[in-house]
Order: sequence, then structure tokens, then C-alpha cells
Amino acid sequence: MQYKDFSALESTAKLAQLAAKPYNLTQPGALSPERIQRFSVSSCGFTLLYATERLDETVLDALQELADEAHLVEQFMAMKKGAVLNRIEGYPCENRQVLHTASRDLFGEPPHAAAATAKARAELDKLRRFLDDLDSGKLVNSQGERFTTLVQVGIGGSDLGPRALSLALNAFALPEREVRFIANVDPDDAAAVLAGLNLRQTLFVIVSKSGSTLETLTNEELVRAALREAGLEPKQHLLAVTGEGSPMDDPSRYLASFYMYDYIGGRYSATSMVGAVTLGFLLGYEALMDLLRGAWEMDMAAEQSNIRKNLPLLMALIGIWNRNFLGYNTCAVLPYSQALSRFPAHLQQCDMESNGKSVTRQGQAVTWKTGPIVWGEPGTNGQHAFYQLIHQGTEIVPAEFIGFRKNQRGLDIQVAGTSSQEKLVANMLAQSLALAQGKEDSNPARSFAGNRPNLVLLAERLTPFQMGALLALYEHRIVFQGFAWNINSFDQEGVQLGKVLAKNLLQHLAAPSRSEEQTVGEALLKTAGMLA
Amino acid sequence: MQYKDFSALESTAKLAQLAAKPYNLTQPGALSPERIQRFSVSSCGFTLLYATERLDETVLDALQELADEAHLVEQFMAMKKGAVLNRIEGYPCENRQVLHTASRDLFGEPPHAAAATAKARAELDKLRRFLDDLDSGKLVNSQGERFTTLVQVGIGGSDLGPRALSLALNAFALPEREVRFIANVDPDDAAAVLAGLNLRQTLFVIVSKSGSTLETLTNEELVRAALREAGLEPKQHLLAVTGEGSPMDDPSRYLASFYMYDYIGGRYSATSMVGAVTLGFLLGYEALMDLLRGAWEMDMAAEQSNIRKNLPLLMALIGIWNRNFLGYNTCAVLPYSQALSRFPAHLQQCDMESNGKSVTRQGQAVTWKTGPIVWGEPGTNGQHAFYQLIHQGTEIVPAEFIGFRKNQRGLDIQVAGTSSQEKLVANMLAQSLALAQGKEDSNPARSFAGNRPNLVLLAERLTPFQMGALLALYEHRIVFQGFAWNINSFDQEGVQLGKVLAKNLLQHLAAPSRSEEQTVGEALLKTAGMLA
Repeated sequence: MQYKDFSALESTAKLAQLAAKPYNLTQPGALSPERIQRFSVSSCGFTLLYATERLDETVLDALQELADEAHLVEQFMAMKKGAVLNRIEGYPCENRQVLHTASRDLFGEPPHAAAATAKARAELDKLRRFLDDLDSGKLVNSQGERFTTLVQVGIGGSDLGPRALSLALNAFALPEREVRFIANVDPDDAAAVLAGLNLRQTLFVIVSKSGSTLETLTNEELVRAALREAGLEPKQHLLAVTGEGSPMDDPSRYLASFYMYDYIGGRYSATSMVGAVTLGFLLGYEALMDLLRGAWEMDMAAEQSNIRKNLPLLMALIGIWNRNFLGYNTCAVLPYSQALSRFPAHLQQCDMESNGKSVTRQGQAVTWKTGPIVWGEPGTNGQHAFYQLIHQGTEIVPAEFIGFRKNQRGLDIQVAGTSSQEKLVANMLAQSLALAQGKEDSNPARSFAGNRPNLVLLAERLTPFQMGALLALYEHRIVFQGFAWNINSFDQEGVQLGKVLAKNLLQHLAAPSRSEEQTVGEALLKTAGMLA
Repeated sequence: MQYKDFSALESTAKLAQLAAKPYNLTQPGALSPERIQRFSVSSCGFTLLYATERLDETVLDALQELADEAHLVEQFMAMKKGAVLNRIEGYPCENRQVLHTASRDLFGEPPHAAAATAKARAELDKLRRFLDDLDSGKLVNSQGERFTTLVQVGIGGSDLGPRALSLALNAFALPEREVRFIANVDPDDAAAVLAGLNLRQTLFVIVSKSGSTLETLTNEELVRAALREAGLEPKQHLLAVTGEGSPMDDPSRYLASFYMYDYIGGRYSATSMVGAVTLGFLLGYEALMDLLRGAWEMDMAAEQSNIRKNLPLLMALIGIWNRNFLGYNTCAVLPYSQALSRFPAHLQQCDMESNGKSVTRQGQAVTWKTGPIVWGEPGTNGQHAFYQLIHQGTEIVPAEFIGFRKNQRGLDIQVAGTSSQEKLVANMLAQSLALAQGKEDSNPARSFAGNRPNLVLLAERLTPFQMGALLALYEHRIVFQGFAWNINSFDQEGVQLGKVLAKNLLQHLAAPSRSEEQTVGEALLKTAGMLA
């Protein structure tokens, strides 16, 4: 397949023209009941309401053309089947397949990428046996007690997705099971987590694909030291999730090992063993399967070429409309669900690390905008915080609301004729309307300009299945956008320079007498008070 | 004092010219040891390193002119002395003083606003007696047991600041004391917190200035129901922090009450009783005083008219340079301290709710940009997540790093010749250099354009004193920027419209049969599946 530059697509010229006069959400009748119903679509339990975006049928038609012209669904299918999409043509690069979908392609036959799915099944089988041994009491600590706590030690993709998902689904935790996370090389992170633990009944899963991530290996040493100090044998408490053959692939040092593969990037790895070990421990194997099934159903829904029926693709294109044609450079993800409190942080990585790029897949500088800044916090909290700027600031922030009709835990209360859950959802929908419609007022400080584009994703309840679907929905939105922008959404070369410079500074700190010349690094360390 | 519009200042025309050719951080020798040392300033334990911003002495001189011409320090002094700065001339508005600094103006005589400080002292004395009674065992539960847990129930400013600060200082918690927070009207938030508590030994502090915040009162009802269900008398477990004479100012319903005043806005209230009750419970009265002293010292440091010596003012002006002249619309706050994990969320509110405005203090539409989008997560975690975009994306993100030479908890480990704390700080400084200098590479995917402006704030250790200073530093940065932009940084009219529309939707939900006409709200609720 020949990739076209975003600027070379005929549809982008058409969209640029349409953007001169986007749909005006503030005119009388602009949000008619018909429009609200027409601009909604359901998939995998989610209903997307997008009448509050600044687009009409003509724009949607042009976005469909963009999708067709850029072969977005074909590229997605090629990805699922194992095409080597993690590459920059003609330059040294990772040169890898992109097969996170294979880790949940378990529910239909034949799978799209049989070899990768077979490996995923093998690891899942291993995990099931491991979890069975915990459940049955076959695997216990040296005192014969059950393990009640699992601490995931990883960073970036080996932390954010699993952390967001376990918080999201903690309401479904098995009795007497809890999980924690250590990520930061900041020693206070590990110290704070370790301080609250009964180490005897705690397992640690160390997650690093390369087996050489500085932060993770340092924290592993801290954990091993803490276990030894407590008179415990580290090997009996440590699990490894790593690449086959990595320095961490060493049965003499870990109670059990699970493999991850180089065709699954860290930020797409939550449904691989990177997330599965911790989520399986917390929720049990069946709930883990529900999560994978939710993701798989969204993987299938994303194959549809009609953008009006393909939820991830439609969201990708709406995002492109806001980013490249209306010119907005951020995107706020605002879940009306406290359980999703860390989901924006996961998306921040998944989106910004994927699409924060400036060169095409042919190594040319892009002349169009790529990934936006993604940020967000749960509503209703945000309403009492930063929403002021979203409503009345000088920047326009496209917003994505995520809500659920029912709560997770069942505890609720009726006040003034409605439940808290109803208040929560009503607030979300009201924010969507307020941003879109605005309101004039004779007091300028109480006027709202409106025309703030936004969309609402709504489902029945945040279950493991629904969480899997939500995760995959955003993964695919990101990937579709990367395809459209003709960038490699699967590498992360931008993190390298900082690593090299940190190494240089650490050499100054480890042996400060070695270098007498006044380098920039030394001056920086001295001025910062880090070198005498 | 006559406020001038930002665009009417002579210095802004000069700065706009200078911005055509900002200092090039990527040229050879641009970051000389001399520059690093010259562009640094120390105050209240912090050293600010700003050589990595795109400015030179000429720009600093023009920023000094801006500060003088807009009377920024005079306005700040007027604020501290009780001027009615929370107003829009000629329009209905809150018309209030702005006296958060009075809540910590306890360490020098005479205080700037004597009446407000006297009230703050009275509440602090009340709090000290309350804490003494807890410490001495005079105040215990109905079983004679000590209270070990305090849950703050509040939202927005009654949640974010106290939450960020108690996380930041949890390493200094008194033995057998812990705090939790409930904010969201999402019933799962309260349910998740309540599920983990020993209610018998738990106090709840309900925080609402008006005594009528929907989310908070709803959660108070949930809490009271949970206590009654556990056979406990709610009044014996609930404290109130509220305005004098509010519906919550009712001794028959609360064990104790503490007052907050309308001249302290929610987002500036962390050092008032809004934060003090919870922080005093967690840390003890002495540590609370250290926090207030740190804030007070920064309050004093902000009175200096030389911008090169006034840390908050200098940071405010650097932010204005990046925002209004270089044109960047976001700002990333990146603490290299896991304890500060929620400090960016507090700043997000404090900054965006204060300066996300579009009308001047005379009710005119602004023609210049106001507050940026503030976001961030702790490093080193962010390095493995969204830093890709910051280094190589198509958007430039001014970054603010915050770090400490020593950790809080003392647990650390030497790996490869350096401690984790040294690795942490070295990584932060390396990121600062990498963003500024960039690096050319024959592989375009491995090239870094550089010229990403950033600054570093470094202190010895995150103690209560240092946290107080950091809090006040950012409060004043925000306030100085609002003064320069000639906006009211102390109201939040932008949150009203959503409240009104939510009420409308809740009426549909409470009595769906009442209205048969097809309104937008009803159509939205139906399409969302909330109305049959």
C-alpha cells in the first residue's frame, strides 16, 4: 500500500474549505431533537452523541472520503494481520509488527494473526494455571498463607494502562485481593507503597520488555532489599513479565515468568501479560476474559468502512476535524466516573507518545499538525475546577465526556427526587449542551460564547467488558489518526535524547572529580546545588 | 489605581517586537555556564533555573517595564491589604476582598490585613484546642477509642488543594493518622472510600463555604446514612468547615465547626480552615504552622519590585512571555517527586479557574490571550509517557520542572554509583537541557528541534515549609498574571450555565411525565437512554 501524505489527500482541501464556516451550534434550533438523534451511533455497548460537534452531513461526507482515500480501514486490517507498520522507510528504526489486537483475538476463528494469538493463548493458559494455584491454596507463602497483595513494578506502558484499568475495575475485585503500583525512580514512591504492605503476603510483578529499564530495575533492587530485610526470600515473591531471552528471563530469580513480545508496544500492552497478570490477580480469570472480549468486540467494530457506523474511526475523524481544520491543539477527556480517574493519564501516554511526531513514515517533515495535547480529570470534580477556562477562556478545548447510566457499587442515595448517579449523568449532559449552545447575557462576565465542540460517550455500566471496549476504542482512534497523518504511531524516538543526557549528568555525580573542565552539565549541576 | 489593558501597555509592543527573534537555545554556546548561573535566582529555599527559557537580558528588561507599567507589585500589595479586587466594574459581581494571604500573615507585625488575620488566628486557636483534645484522648469516640482517620468531603477548592498537600506531606503524618477524600457526586467515589474505613474511628469534615454545594451535601447525606447504618451517631463524627451563618453553621449537627470567609476563594483556600483541619489532623499543629510559615515567607518575597529577585513575579512574566509573545497556549507542570503527584491537578484549578477569562475588569472583551491550559504528571513517569510529544510533536509545550535534592522518606539505594534520588534529579535536569538544546541527527526520526522553553525549580527537600512556599509561589504567579491581563482572577462565572442546565435535566428525570413537548433536553436524555 502506498501511503499518501495528509496534505496530498483531495479530501483535506475540501475539509479546509468547509472549515471556513463550521456548523454554528449557537443559532436557534441548531441542536434540534432530530439532530441529536441523527448524530448518534451505538457500538459495543457505547452510544456516541456527537450533535454537539461543529459538523454537518457535508463534513461527515468529506471525512468519509478522507477515510477512504487514506485507506484507513485497510491499514487497520493490515495492522491486525501483522504488517510491519512500526517503521520509517529508508531509516534505521524498530521495524516491527503491531499486534496488540492479537492479544485478544480469542473469540472468533480464524484469528487475524494466528502465530501471535497462539503465543497470547499460551501465556494466558500459563496465567490461568498460576491463578488457579493461588485460588486453590497450592501456591502460598513460606508460612502457608495466601498472597493478598500484588504490586506491579513498571513504568510508562508497563504502569499506566494496568493502573488505570485496575482502578477502573476495583469494584469487581476478588475478596481479599488488592493491587498496588510502583513506577517512579523517586525512592519515595517505593517507600510509600512498601510502608503500607504486609510483605509476607505480597507478590511483586516486575514488568520490563527489554529487562533493562533503569527505573524498574532500580525499584526491583529496592523491593528485593526490603524483602531480604524482612527475612523473606525475594525469589518466592517476584514474578517477571518480560521479553523472551531478556536479562530478566531467568527462572532462578523469579517465581514465575510471563512473556511479552516486541510487536506489542508498551502503550498498547494493557491486554497483554503486562496488564493481564495484575488484572487476573485482582479480578480473577473470568473477569479478565470479559475485559478481553470487550476489547475484541471493539476490534471487530473498527473494521467497518462506513464511518457513521465505526465508532473508533468516527471519533478519529472528528478529532482530525477539530485538530487540523478547526485548529484546536488540545483535547480534554472528562470521565463522569471516579473509577476512570486515571484513564486520562493512560490516554495521555497512548495518544501523545503515539502521535506526538513530526516526520512521516517516509522520514519527511510533516507540514500538518499531528497529535494534540490530551489531558483531563473526572467530572463532576472538574466542573468545580478548570471548566471555567473551557467555558469562558480564550482557548477552545474540544471535550470528550464519558459516562455510565448505572454506578458500579450499588450504593446510592435519593436527594431532591434524583439519585447521585442521575445527578452525575445529568451534569455531564448539561455540560455538553452548555459548551455547545452558550448563552448571551447583558453582563459580559456571565456570557458564554458557545460553539465549544464536544462529544459524549455513554454506556450502561463500567464493567470489565465495557472497560475493554473503551480501551480498544481509544487505541483505535489513535491508530486511525496516525494512519491519516502518515506518521509512525508505534515508535518513541523522542525519549532517547533525555536518557543520553541523564547518563552524562549521572557520570558527573558518580565521579565528580573526573572532569575539571566547565561543561554545561557541570555548570547546571553546580548551579542546581547538586555538585559542590 | 487605574487598570490599563494589557494591549495598552507600551512594554507589550516592545515585547511583541522582541518575540520576532527569541533567544536561540540551539546555537553553539547558547547555554554557557555563565548563562546558567546568571539566569538563576533563589528565594524561600527554591532555586529557579531559567537559562533554558527563550529570553535574554533585553527581554527581561522589557518584562520589568511591564511589571512596573502595570503596577503588578502595587496591585499585589493592595490585595494583601484588603482591596476589593474580586469585581467587574459596573456589573453585578461578587465584590469581595481577596485575602488568602491573611490566613498565614502570622509571623510578622503588623499583619497587612489585621481583621482578617485576627479571624484566621481565632480559627487556628480553635483548631489547636481541637487537635490537643484528640492528642490527649479527651476527644474520643463513643467506645473511648481514638480517631485515626479523617475524611474530607468537599469539591473543587475544598478538595484539590488539601488533597494535593496531604499527599505531598504524607511522609510526615503522625503515627496512626490517615486522611481520605470524597469529592465526586459519583456515588462510587463515596462507596469506594467508605468501603475501606473503620467508621467507628473516623471523622468526616464537610467543607462548603455556602453550605449548599450540591455534590458535597449529597455526599454528606451518604456519609450520615452510612454512619447510622453502622449504629453510630453522625453528629459525633462530623465536623463542618463553612461560612459563618451558612445552612451548615449548625452546632446541633456537627461535633465542631470552623469558619471560612468569603474573601478567600475556594482555589486559594488551602491555607485557611479548608486545608488546615485536615492537614492539622494528619501532620499535627506544629507542622501545619511550618506550612503556613513557608507560604508567608513567599508572600513576603513576592513584594519585591525587582523581577530578577521576585520569584513568583519572574515566573509570572516568563509565563506571559511564552503565552502572549511566543504564542504557546499550554503549560506543563512536571514535578520530579511522586509526593507531588496531585499538585498539577491543584494548579490546574487554581490557574485555569482564575485566569480562564475573556473579559477585563471593566467588562470589555479581551483582545489578548489569557490563562493557558495547565496540565502535568510526575517525572520520571512522564518521560515514559507523553514526553515524546513535548520533544518531537508539532506543538511546543513550555515546561516547568520541580525537584528536590533529598527524598522525604530516607529509603534509597545505590545502583551503578548513584542513588535513586540522584537519578531522579539528573533525569529532570537532563530533560530541561534536551528540550532546550535539541540535537540534529541524520535520521529525521531521531532529530530534536530544541528551543522548547522550560524552567527548573529546585529545593532541598519537600517539607511542610517548602510545600507552603511552593503553594504560595504558584498562587502569586497566577495572581500577577491576572493583574497583567487586567482580568478578575477571583470569580468563576463560567461554572454557572452548566449548573442551570443540569437542574433542567434533573427536573425531566425527577418527573419525566410532566413535560410532553420534545425539548432539546428531553431529546438528549432519550437518545442517551436516560428517559424511556
